[in-house]
Amino acid sequence: MALVVQKYGGSSLATPDLIKKVASKALARHKKGDQVVVVASAMKGVTDSLINTALEITDLPTLREYDSMLSTGEQVSTALLAIAINSLGGNARSMLSFQVPIHTNSAFKDARIEKIETKNIKRLLKEGNIVIVAGFQGIDHDNNITTLGRGGSDTSAVALAAALNADVIEICSDVDGIYTTDPHIVEKARRLDKISYEEVLELSSLGAKVLQIRAVEMAMKHEVPVLCLSTFSPTGGTLVTKGDMQMEQITVSGVALDKNESKVTIINVPDKPGVAAKLFKPLSDANISVDMIIQNVSEAGYTDISFTVRKEDLARAKRLARDAAENLGAKGVVTDDKVVKVSVVGLGMRSHAGVASRMFEALSSGNVNIQMISTSEIKVSCVVDKKYGELAVRLLHDEFELHKKPGSRKAPKKTAKKAGVSSKKTAAKKASGTKKK
Amino acid sequence: MALVVQKYGGSSLATPDLIKKVASKALARHKKGDQVVVVASAMKGVTDSLINTALEITDLPTLREYDSMLSTGEQVSTALLAIAINSLGGNARSMLSFQVPIHTNSAFKDARIEKIETKNIKRLLKEGNIVIVAGFQGIDHDNNITTLGRGGSDTSAVALAAALNADVIEICSDVDGIYTTDPHIVEKARRLDKISYEEVLELSSLGAKVLQIRAVEMAMKHEVPVLCLSTFSPTGGTLVTKGDMQMEQITVSGVALDKNESKVTIINVPDKPGVAAKLFKPLSDANISVDMIIQNVSEAGYTDISFTVRKEDLARAKRLARDAAENLGAKGVVTDDKVVKVSVVGLGMRSHAGVASRMFEALSSGNVNIQMISTSEIKVSCVVDKKYGELAVRLLHDEFELHKKPGSRKAPKKTAKKAGVSSKKTAAKKASGTKKK
Repeated sequence: MALVVQKYGGSSLATPDLIKKVASKALARHKKGDQVVVVASAMKGVTDSLINTALEITDLPTLREYDSMLSTGEQVSTALLAIAINSLGGNARSMLSFQVPIHTNSAFKDARIEKIETKNIKRLLKEGNIVIVAGFQGIDHDNNITTLGRGGSDTSAVALAAALNADVIEICSDVDGIYTTDPHIVEKARRLDKISYEEVLELSSLGAKVLQIRAVEMAMKHEVPVLCLSTFSPTGGTLVTKGDMQMEQITVSGVALDKNESKVTIINVPDKPGVAAKLFKPLSDANISVDMIIQNVSEAGYTDISFTVRKEDLARAKRLARDAAENLGAKGVVTDDKVVKVSVVGLGMRSHAGVASRMFEALSSGNVNIQMISTSEIKVSCVVDKKYGELAVRLLHDEFELHKKPGSRKAPKKTAKKAGVSSKKTAAKKASGTKKK
Repeated sequence: MALVVQKYGGSSLATPDLIKKVASKALARHKKGDQVVVVASAMKGVTDSLINTALEITDLPTLREYDSMLSTGEQVSTALLAIAINSLGGNARSMLSFQVPIHTNSAFKDARIEKIETKNIKRLLKEGNIVIVAGFQGIDHDNNITTLGRGGSDTSAVALAAALNADVIEICSDVDGIYTTDPHIVEKARRLDKISYEEVLELSSLGAKVLQIRAVEMAMKHEVPVLCLSTFSPTGGTLVTKGDMQMEQITVSGVALDKNESKVTIINVPDKPGVAAKLFKPLSDANISVDMIIQNVSEAGYTDISFTVRKEDLARAKRLARDAAENLGAKGVVTDDKVVKVSVVGLGMRSHAGVASRMFEALSSGNVNIQMISTSEIKVSCVVDKKYGELAVRLLHDEFELHKKPGSRKAPKKTAKKAGVSSKKTAAKKASGTKKK
């Protein structure tokens, strides 16, 4: 008898009919002899509709109230799912965050789970119930309802699985796993059977929207294996787990395209200590998340600093960067929101040089100009002109033969090795060179 | 500084714009120096839409889950109202039943309030907040969410006012008070400035839909005066309070029309002890609420028994009555759903004979045949053919000159006195007589 946590996304629960199907699925699992905890998202569209209603009243809703309102989406779907399971002859009970309870801090709209009490859930499971837990929500120390941020139901599910010491967690959605890249861009994109937490983290943060990034972090921390699969298709699925020897041999797992980046460059900043701090402190104070940061080598005591921010933060970032530029005695600020970020991700990069150079080569073969480069242990990202984004993904998917299983790929081209990149610093230099031509 | 409880109905909160208007109203009251507790219903249409979704899954939803789902309507409206008040510069906090807490028994879908803890609300009021409490909901001893039955927000408001020892409770809706009858039927219908709890109880149960009957009972028990008024009109209003000397002089306060009655008659029941019990026990076991019961005088050892039930219960009631008729050796069962009940209500009837006879006379003057009669201390009801319902209301409104203030009405016609009815028994006899012609 295994303890299974199943999480269902909003599109799997979009209509009463779909809810009945999900109910059958959970019930079938329970009848097989497993203990089943289900985490439900809100029915598709409900959360957005609630947000729009609040925004019709004011642009700046009180966050405590906003969370109390938003949490009703999951309250409805969990009750409906329990009703559906019971109508099929099962025994199901919905549980809201105050009933579990799921304790969080008081950071409304983006709360962190602090502790999950498991006594009530365990008792209900023991009594033969399927327990349906409302995802996305918690309660703080004053009994206020909190929410965990967009996509927070994934986090709820992983946290519950960790707290309950579940044998497996299944994230059920309308896609049947994690792919080497977006199948809408590259038809040959291949579903991965297995991928490491670290790689998924890079893919999530790069916009692949596979799993909420915090859920992956939590799964990694507690070493909970996560199976991502389709709600209504019996086959497929990708297991997200810790990196193992087999995966070490894989050079590149996937290619990600992030369309939500925009670029800010501060020109001719006097090159002296403390400059970066003066620039980025105001951005951080304004809660603007900065992704890539590139500082060029200094020429005659001046340097250019470029960074990327999410598109929705560009206007504010530009204002703050202008203020900073003035204070620092820089020449000015230019911005560009017609850019995208293309990344190749792979655990194997840790021990395989040459991935970056093969990437640059492939982009160059398609005449895609690289504007910025950044590298980490398991990814290489390039900022390119928006209009070349999808072309870049296709070139890279081909270059690394991601449509084939790792064992059957051919060796990298010899020429690529010459351009091997070994450190961030070199990459930064190269980036500046590319940008200036 | 007064402590005011304001309750807003669903049509006053139907859109974000209306919510903003209600917010201004509550805020204005708070700025006048009063402590304000607001009880909000769900936005109009929301509860019905939730019910329909559940019914798409099954005809018999688990009641615990049904209540958890239904309670979200008020959770959303309270949060939105708090958001609106805060956006106008006020300080508002929504409170759900588990946050207050409002304790009920575990009768899901129709729970009774057992206790309201006031510590949290009082603290928030003291800190200068407008407290917005979700109506219609409570929690039971196991932390399950319960609901108080349709229109339960009125009950929440009255219970809160009683627990908080409020100075006044205002029930704000889209009508500006309680009328002598439905103004859609009688154009001259007059708004009452004041009415007793007892009269409203009769009017509510007769279908006037003024206030939820349990709310009135609770207000009467705790002697909380209830002011019914229009949300968006500054004038008008009807105060519901205990009957006083002034009201004793009023003979008739209002005329009510209930279109949701249907009639069941069991013919030729052997007239012996225990017959009524054998008939009505199964109905009560099936949770069918029986309104009027008329047993005719016995003729040669046989009697006819008629009763009325809500239209939605007629099919079940008919089945049960047939079973009972068979067991009792009765001749058969006939039903009629083309009937309505017309009632005149007035505290003054207690001490004024002649109201019933004036009623019969007036109906007779319009050729309206009376099928059943029942009387209480403060009302007389007649079942008549559906097609005469509105005519009957107009005839009675005219006869008792309800469009005029009580002091300016002319004395009843002399002829009416002859037909004076003094007890239920006589009325029942009369009913049977009338029916048989």
